[in-house]
Amino acid sequence: MDDIMKTGERLEDLGLNGLKILQNPHHFCFGIDAVLLAWYASSSVRPKTRVVDLGTGTGVIPLLLYGRTGVNHVDALEIQPDMANMARRSVAMNGLDNTIFIHCADLRQPGPAFHPSTYDVVTSNPPYMPAGHGGINPRDALAIARHEITCTLADIARFSQIMLKDRGKLFMVHRADRMADIAAILREHGLEIKRLRAVYPYPGKSANLILVQAMKKGQPHMVLEPPLYVYNDDGTYTDAINAIYGTNGPTAR
Amino acid sequence: MDDIMKTGERLEDLGLNGLKILQNPHHFCFGIDAVLLAWYASSSVRPKTRVVDLGTGTGVIPLLLYGRTGVNHVDALEIQPDMANMARRSVAMNGLDNTIFIHCADLRQPGPAFHPSTYDVVTSNPPYMPAGHGGINPRDALAIARHEITCTLADIARFSQIMLKDRGKLFMVHRADRMADIAAILREHGLEIKRLRAVYPYPGKSANLILVQAMKKGQPHMVLEPPLYVYNDDGTYTDAINAIYGTNGPTAR
Repeated sequence: MDDIMKTGERLEDLGLNGLKILQNPHHFCFGIDAVLLAWYASSSVRPKTRVVDLGTGTGVIPLLLYGRTGVNHVDALEIQPDMANMARRSVAMNGLDNTIFIHCADLRQPGPAFHPSTYDVVTSNPPYMPAGHGGINPRDALAIARHEITCTLADIARFSQIMLKDRGKLFMVHRADRMADIAAILREHGLEIKRLRAVYPYPGKSANLILVQAMKKGQPHMVLEPPLYVYNDDGTYTDAINAIYGTNGPTAR
Repeated sequence: MDDIMKTGERLEDLGLNGLKILQNPHHFCFGIDAVLLAWYASSSVRPKTRVVDLGTGTGVIPLLLYGRTGVNHVDALEIQPDMANMARRSVAMNGLDNTIFIHCADLRQPGPAFHPSTYDVVTSNPPYMPAGHGGINPRDALAIARHEITCTLADIARFSQIMLKDRGKLFMVHRADRMADIAAILREHGLEIKRLRAVYPYPGKSANLILVQAMKKGQPHMVLEPPLYVYNDDGTYTDAINAIYGTNGPTAR
């Protein structure tokens, strides 16, 4: 393991077909949003679906998607070399080098490995905070994961507009308070929201996350799905969340 | 009553401070959407708030807003002369001729009675269906109330952009499947959604209505409020709906 794990890294079991993942608690660990996104997107992923994951971080979305669907080709972009390196080692550790391809690349200029109109599905768990909020060190891994420094909503929409096939789908998890923003920016880039599911921490509270499915060249008509509640009043997970985590195991949080 | 009621009309008690309203079941009767909109908007209406209601129909929104808030000046536009006439008679019947002003006018060209940047609140329970769906008689009162023949989302947004004060609010009820449409069209007209509440017929079903509060020159940051469920599984109204109807009485449905 010495050559595959580095100081500060932690190995976790994804609780899904024996898949494992490296994380570094000092940088960025995946959270419930990644688990929900992989669950939400998996309804549209079959083994032959061409998927690209933007800002893959630890590689959690491709790994969970593979575990849920058996998808046999996922490209994943990560702009930070250290993070891309760790994700690549997680992929190797699972023997998935011929399934999940980690590209250390900037989604704003992805390079010749990416061909327009070739993907069925884009997934994105992007930074939630607009850039320029407070003092941010743009070299900081956490800051890049959380703030729109190297990846704005418009960047994601533009990538999806170019790289998706017609009627291809973008799946995104984001903060609920950006919902109108997301609808407007996607439309500016030829993408229409088709399904939206709001995630509420508790019944009676406002939503904190939304899961969005948009379509390239889709018509403006969408389904606002039933809400997803995360916690019961006593602080335990709801049955709906347990069912989603069920296939991911208790460590994937 | 002979001079104030016409053949085919029905007088209903709004169950709110003794207010009454004329309706014509052959044309258009207000529904739960109007009751929800008046409730949702009333949080931002005080006696001196300047309100304009677009496509007022029977005048139900101004009457309910008056009943809930004591607002002392509401302008209401209605493009159909017969409908405007009936609404005016409902207003007179309640002795509110100096409070609710029914204008038989086209909101696309409202005329000199309307002055830019003078309203605090716009309310709108607009037609839900895009024009050109099926065979529509454009002179038909029901068709005008239901289809975007004389009033599109862009028309409402344009009116609001012109007539609202800066930071003035637009309240709208609409079909949930138009949500992304609404967010994008409002933004094109300088209005940002600030609050949104999805209305679900039953738990576990998709939403059918949304209540939207947008702000002229607002920032792109919104609250996705807790869902509002209309019916319990046994078909009775939920406590939330009963509480909203509570002040409106059982006939207002």
